[in-house]
Amino acid sequence: MAEDERKIVLDKSNFSEWYNDVVDVAGLSEKRYPIKGMNVWTPYGWKIMQKVDSIIRRECDATGHDEVHFPLLIPKTEFQKEADHIKGFDAEVYWVTHGGLNELDIPLLLRPTSETAMYPIFSLWVRSHKDLPLKTYQIVNTFRYETKMTRSFIRVREIHFFEAHTCHDSFEEAEKQIREDCSIMDKVGSDLCLPYLLVKRPDWDKFAGAVYTIGVDTLMPSKKTLQLGSIHQYKENFSKPYDIKFEGSDGEFHFAHQTTYGMSERLIGAIVGVHGDDKGVIMPPKIAPFQFVIIPILAKNKSEMVLEEARKLRQEMTEMGFRIKLDERDTRPGSKHYDWEIKGVPIRIEIGPRDIEKGTVVFARRDLSTKSFIERSDLKAQAEKALDEIHSELRKRADDIVDNGVKMVDSLDDGTKLLGSGWDGIIKTNWCGEMDCAQAMEKALDKTFLGFPMKDVDSGEEEKHSGNCMNCGRPTDTVVMLSKSY
Amino acid sequence: MAEDERKIVLDKSNFSEWYNDVVDVAGLSEKRYPIKGMNVWTPYGWKIMQKVDSIIRRECDATGHDEVHFPLLIPKTEFQKEADHIKGFDAEVYWVTHGGLNELDIPLLLRPTSETAMYPIFSLWVRSHKDLPLKTYQIVNTFRYETKMTRSFIRVREIHFFEAHTCHDSFEEAEKQIREDCSIMDKVGSDLCLPYLLVKRPDWDKFAGAVYTIGVDTLMPSKKTLQLGSIHQYKENFSKPYDIKFEGSDGEFHFAHQTTYGMSERLIGAIVGVHGDDKGVIMPPKIAPFQFVIIPILAKNKSEMVLEEARKLRQEMTEMGFRIKLDERDTRPGSKHYDWEIKGVPIRIEIGPRDIEKGTVVFARRDLSTKSFIERSDLKAQAEKALDEIHSELRKRADDIVDNGVKMVDSLDDGTKLLGSGWDGIIKTNWCGEMDCAQAMEKALDKTFLGFPMKDVDSGEEEKHSGNCMNCGRPTDTVVMLSKSY
Repeated sequence: MAEDERKIVLDKSNFSEWYNDVVDVAGLSEKRYPIKGMNVWTPYGWKIMQKVDSIIRRECDATGHDEVHFPLLIPKTEFQKEADHIKGFDAEVYWVTHGGLNELDIPLLLRPTSETAMYPIFSLWVRSHKDLPLKTYQIVNTFRYETKMTRSFIRVREIHFFEAHTCHDSFEEAEKQIREDCSIMDKVGSDLCLPYLLVKRPDWDKFAGAVYTIGVDTLMPSKKTLQLGSIHQYKENFSKPYDIKFEGSDGEFHFAHQTTYGMSERLIGAIVGVHGDDKGVIMPPKIAPFQFVIIPILAKNKSEMVLEEARKLRQEMTEMGFRIKLDERDTRPGSKHYDWEIKGVPIRIEIGPRDIEKGTVVFARRDLSTKSFIERSDLKAQAEKALDEIHSELRKRADDIVDNGVKMVDSLDDGTKLLGSGWDGIIKTNWCGEMDCAQAMEKALDKTFLGFPMKDVDSGEEEKHSGNCMNCGRPTDTVVMLSKSY
Repeated sequence: MAEDERKIVLDKSNFSEWYNDVVDVAGLSEKRYPIKGMNVWTPYGWKIMQKVDSIIRRECDATGHDEVHFPLLIPKTEFQKEADHIKGFDAEVYWVTHGGLNELDIPLLLRPTSETAMYPIFSLWVRSHKDLPLKTYQIVNTFRYETKMTRSFIRVREIHFFEAHTCHDSFEEAEKQIREDCSIMDKVGSDLCLPYLLVKRPDWDKFAGAVYTIGVDTLMPSKKTLQLGSIHQYKENFSKPYDIKFEGSDGEFHFAHQTTYGMSERLIGAIVGVHGDDKGVIMPPKIAPFQFVIIPILAKNKSEMVLEEARKLRQEMTEMGFRIKLDERDTRPGSKHYDWEIKGVPIRIEIGPRDIEKGTVVFARRDLSTKSFIERSDLKAQAEKALDEIHSELRKRADDIVDNGVKMVDSLDDGTKLLGSGWDGIIKTNWCGEMDCAQAMEKALDKTFLGFPMKDVDSGEEEKHSGNCMNCGRPTDTVVMLSKSY
């Protein structure tokens, strides 16, 4: 199809506009719902979200978490039990004040997250050390009255949300859970071809009620970090006000140690942002609603034969376990190519009269725009191989983004020079721990503290590196990252 | 285990109490959440609901419906566009009036059902006859401020809900959709082993805004009918106020004809009520979270060997595609039997040292309490056969309930005599169409009009039968059903 027939020009170099456009034209989300920041999940967008959910479920189930589903509404009286938590959410919860024509005795709020819904019940479920660990998760929508500008998947008011909540008999067991959470994140990130960093938040930026928070951050093409998820150590901060205690093997009662792990539809925003290009989005094979789209090339007098063969191919590949779309629409192949490119189907299969004669099909890769002839007799192996290759290519791109997006810098001078040279991304440096220095660094670099990078996925330790505070020069081995964030 | 060790006596002859107890002891729902009628889905209950959802998804996908997911909150201004609809729901919606510390300009309501959320968007999606039919569904929670007594799964304030919404280019196409809905119900009812009747509601009992409503009713052991779902013909009642119109092939604009189909977690309430007994619930094999529970019989000195073999058995059967639970708890087999009976696992597998020697296992059926020895070499075929047999047995029980639960009666005298004899259930009779007669019949029988039974699943026609109005004796072929209802 000629370029001039394309309906919209996608230009990723203008990321913010590109992102909004591509979500629209790929049909990922319907933004015209009459409440700002509450979008409609389209059939295609919802299929992607369900694939992501199924990966999260697989990992949670494999690690012994039970899926539950708690009510949406939380009585004000329960919500108010943990003081820091209320302060953190007070300005952004939706309040239900009336049922029918009656004013409610106790106002109810729409869960912004479910600690205060779950923990009154956990206090009933946890009685003895034999009930521990209690490992639960749920996938629900949460609600935040956002006052900032909204953006599909990234900042919305109704959020498709995963949250794991666990109770343990000791701080050490809770710490182990946090390491397990990091390894779940690693598997999810790998399947979704998402680059990510584990960064412990500074105290002033931790979750309301947490002892500490590990943020899961990705780097968007805008060079801003996007928090994809977060993992929290609560210690006894919630179990005390919510009275979650157990009889230990010592016969004494103890408060449970708790952790949570949250992720949201931002995972989709990140996939769109990281992997999309000027032709549209690119769906990682493991979550693509359709891994292959079959485009029949309908030649004169042979249309019926080709269509029949294309249907047979769909049937075959479906039985092989692939997710297949056959585009039977009565439009030109070029127009179909364009539509499925925008939607990011990993591989387009073309099949025409000559292919049928030769017993081949054409595979066209979305990521590299390459084409190859595939023998029908070797279809399953070739299809698997092609999906694997795309997965690897997208993972490589993801890794490159992090590798090139983080730079270690020793001094404020070097930092401002680097940023002045045109490079932008995450600045990694040393920090002495003084607030004055933090503020000076933030101001000079025009970035904010993202936090303390973790050494690796498994150890639960922060990265250490001898150096000097970027601002005052005092020696320190504390490493921090600064970035602009969504 | 000896009877006297049982923790609770379940007595289904006292249905109402039995129902509440069995939901508790089988761990289907946690009712202690601090808002009346909003219950917590436990891991076991949620697994059942997800299986039911997956059957509904399968049928909707196979009939070309697209799954979508619309926002929870609906602006008051959108809600008010269809007059009858508001009247129907005004007294039972929850209102969100505040976001954070601000009063909202336009109050928002929690969806009681999603017509008024979806249709403003349908008016954007439907432009041409080529966009039709538009067939969508979603599985979400809905909210009703119930003032009646709540009961798990049957009458709750947060309802797990399936709703299909379709748009068509003509009344005839919409009628076809309704017949398709009935056939979907037939498949769902069959897989869930649920008896059901399709009964067109009298005009005064139809859905707010509908032209007509077909109720899907089951008969509970309490002899009260429970509405499991409903199918609605809207004609243009919503498309006009919501401006859903399309350009026809005639070049003119027409309003779309619409239908909806709803079902809820009541399906689970019905399964519990219909199939449970004094030992607990009985899960139909197609939705049982665990189709088999393996109980290792741990004899002295051989425990490790038996446990190892039991794990191997779990692995084998999981690979065969069955859903398996291995109960490794350190408690007596009798206690385990009791727990899994309550939860209704269709088949308990016992495996002990002698079984291992002989290459057999014991299958104990939950529905008939029978036991049989199964050769390990023939395990897959025998396991499939056993599940099929249980499915057939439960379906037969379901059919019997409807067959014995509905009686045709000619006159008020016969009706009151029948009810006086101790029989109770659905009364089927003729009615002339006059309101006075309807009221007299309802009063004399102490039942209410359920509606007009459909002839069959496929035809879309009501049952007709020559006779005389039960009250006034005038000849008529209109057949009606009366019952007590939840």
